[in-house]
Amino acid sequence: MSVKSYIESNKDRFLEELFSLIRIPSISAKHENKPDMLTCAQRWTEVLLSSGADKAEVMPTKGNPVVYAEKMVSPNAPTVLVYAHYDVMPAEPLELWKSEPFEPVIRDGRIWARGADDDKGQGMIQVKGFETAIKEGLLQCNVKFIFEGEEEIGSPSLEDFCREHKELLKADVILVSDTSMVSAETPSLTTGLRGLAYWEIEVTGPNRDLHSGHFGGAVANPINVLCKLMADITDVDGRITIPGFYDDVEDVSPAEREMIAQIPFDEEKYKKAIGVDALFGEKGYSTLERNSCRPSFDICGIWGGYTGEGSKTVLPSKAYAKVSTRLVPHQDHAKISQMFEEYIARVTPPYVKVKVTPSHGGQGYVCPIDLPAYQAAEKAVGIAFGKKPLAVRRGGSIPIISTFEQVLGIKTVLMGFGLEQNAIHSPNESQELDIFFKGIESVAEFYRLYK
Amino acid sequence: MSVKSYIESNKDRFLEELFSLIRIPSISAKHENKPDMLTCAQRWTEVLLSSGADKAEVMPTKGNPVVYAEKMVSPNAPTVLVYAHYDVMPAEPLELWKSEPFEPVIRDGRIWARGADDDKGQGMIQVKGFETAIKEGLLQCNVKFIFEGEEEIGSPSLEDFCREHKELLKADVILVSDTSMVSAETPSLTTGLRGLAYWEIEVTGPNRDLHSGHFGGAVANPINVLCKLMADITDVDGRITIPGFYDDVEDVSPAEREMIAQIPFDEEKYKKAIGVDALFGEKGYSTLERNSCRPSFDICGIWGGYTGEGSKTVLPSKAYAKVSTRLVPHQDHAKISQMFEEYIARVTPPYVKVKVTPSHGGQGYVCPIDLPAYQAAEKAVGIAFGKKPLAVRRGGSIPIISTFEQVLGIKTVLMGFGLEQNAIHSPNESQELDIFFKGIESVAEFYRLYK
Repeated sequence: MSVKSYIESNKDRFLEELFSLIRIPSISAKHENKPDMLTCAQRWTEVLLSSGADKAEVMPTKGNPVVYAEKMVSPNAPTVLVYAHYDVMPAEPLELWKSEPFEPVIRDGRIWARGADDDKGQGMIQVKGFETAIKEGLLQCNVKFIFEGEEEIGSPSLEDFCREHKELLKADVILVSDTSMVSAETPSLTTGLRGLAYWEIEVTGPNRDLHSGHFGGAVANPINVLCKLMADITDVDGRITIPGFYDDVEDVSPAEREMIAQIPFDEEKYKKAIGVDALFGEKGYSTLERNSCRPSFDICGIWGGYTGEGSKTVLPSKAYAKVSTRLVPHQDHAKISQMFEEYIARVTPPYVKVKVTPSHGGQGYVCPIDLPAYQAAEKAVGIAFGKKPLAVRRGGSIPIISTFEQVLGIKTVLMGFGLEQNAIHSPNESQELDIFFKGIESVAEFYRLYK
Repeated sequence: MSVKSYIESNKDRFLEELFSLIRIPSISAKHENKPDMLTCAQRWTEVLLSSGADKAEVMPTKGNPVVYAEKMVSPNAPTVLVYAHYDVMPAEPLELWKSEPFEPVIRDGRIWARGADDDKGQGMIQVKGFETAIKEGLLQCNVKFIFEGEEEIGSPSLEDFCREHKELLKADVILVSDTSMVSAETPSLTTGLRGLAYWEIEVTGPNRDLHSGHFGGAVANPINVLCKLMADITDVDGRITIPGFYDDVEDVSPAEREMIAQIPFDEEKYKKAIGVDALFGEKGYSTLERNSCRPSFDICGIWGGYTGEGSKTVLPSKAYAKVSTRLVPHQDHAKISQMFEEYIARVTPPYVKVKVTPSHGGQGYVCPIDLPAYQAAEKAVGIAFGKKPLAVRRGGSIPIISTFEQVLGIKTVLMGFGLEQNAIHSPNESQELDIFFKGIESVAEFYRLYK
């Protein structure tokens, strides 16, 4: 049987196995879903074993457990370590979902559910590609799997886990499906990622909520102050104003700018798809440069004062924000994090107190395109999609990729099958069935080529 | 029996009657409390009748009903119209209350509950002062009562109600207990109030929440934009930058500045009481000028993006704020409201859409101190508190006061007994028992003097 026909005759089962994982709401950001994390990890071990792993187990970490599995074909063969994550983003705002986030449905040739792409769908592409390779007799390398349960909260336990299990995780290359392609028509492999630094900010003014009539004008309002602090971080040219922020940023080279310009991109379509009349970003850079090779500053959440129905004339005691910067390779997230804290402390006016709590962070990453595993992946995707994939840098962050490089000394090939329209992290996340199966085919072909 | 001894021997009953009203959570800002509004209005009619009113009834409006009551002593006597409101502010944040907001308790010589001061406590001062005056044979004028249920949401129905019932509400002066005194040691009457304009702002960026890694830097973030819009409304000198905003502001006169400087005020104590290290307000004005005679701009609430536990790297679709300006006499709230809307429309960048929804507003007010009722009130408070009250302008807004003047053609005397430490609109609202009873005495003495 060919790879294509094996996949064709097992389609329904592949989907059923994916759905059984999606139905477990493994939201790492929420305490209430703690029990779901173990349930989800255990379900993955069952799926991995039935897919051809020799062994699969749930291993404890200081946070959510890790799923580890392996199939060893020969001590002389190279080893691939497959990384994915079984945790998902919160599903809020729930009222915007057209169907239940944790009850997957197929509609218009797509799977709709939280995790349909990120990263249960992509994790399943890896596992079913692996199964197909075994069943078709193509597998010539050892395969290890490590699926973590804390990616969406910044992988706080994985670095320690890697340090403690260096021998177990020994491999020649890491294969990750957690990134996107340019489009269904323009397959691509990701050769660069942005880093991330994330903070929660708490501004405290008066010790209690005050009546805005009796105190307004005489006492600083912490929401007013928070808005000012946040507004000052970027300028009219979309640049970040924190002194020293750009020090380690390597400017985009003319060669890379030329390659980026070759990526098919229709700015009108892009604006239409997200429903905006105009784009805004750093002056002097194109949209594709801005969202992949340049840093950014986003307020991811803000809250304070009265936010209920009707109006309340209050001068609140506190205001909060969750903010992040995307970083580019060579910017160190720990350095940036400290720079940000020091900056806020320096510009905080005397009439409020500001607390900055650093959250997770991660370094950017660059993958060399002459890596044997990269070349195998390039050919494999080319076979499945009928077109050689482009090598592109992406704007997202997978902090653990640079940790793998530092701790395990292993390079990663980012073989992702996501698409922009899959709306990961948003309501109505989805995944195209056709891409899901082409992804499985790509992974199976990768194992035919990598030896 | 004297006024003092009548009050002394009826203390417990007065408190019981107040508590029966406080226990009804008449929060006008919340739909869920709709049934409580009628219950509270009905309870007031019972209290008014048992306190000496000839008749008391609940009258419909297009919103929450109005309580109307009267005692007519003679067609030739002057008539006082007493205004109060039976609705209260929401009690959130609930976790900061030391006892239940709607279950009044007495602790440390104070009544603790939502509405203990604003305005159930002060409304009860009026009603029990009226009862005392009747029982002591002091009443020489007609008294009408109008208690509304929408003051905390801007009295949207009262203007129409006044227009429809001009004859019924005919009076020589309006008496209102809904303001504060300088302190327990420095009684005062309010002779000026600030106006108010209030808006809700909705900023829309992309049509859905986006992944901040894939889009950050290339697509404008509506929270970033909202912060910039808000930050730009005030400058480093604490002045409002909207062109034309100060056009109708009458500067504080040297005479008034001198009087304000005579109000006992300890800035260090003030800062300590609200827990701030420094104050901030408009350059060139003192704290007491800033919070009474000068306009202010406060963001009363802000929200958008991910505000739950943990971190979510999202570039949200929407961001919101509830904002208000306090206005001074001569500034027209409708004109300011339109000016604000036009300003925001003008400065909105092309990459977001901004919707400004005006909420309630009201004009400022000035009371002439040669009004006979003002002079009676001044003497009455002097008797009860043992000290002539100061005439001061306050920073809060009671928009209905200027509506009374425009629609009914009647001036208002603001005979309020609140204190800053009562924490109205905040958790742990309270009222001092001693002041509550001195207030009742003041009102009874007012009726002895006003004829």
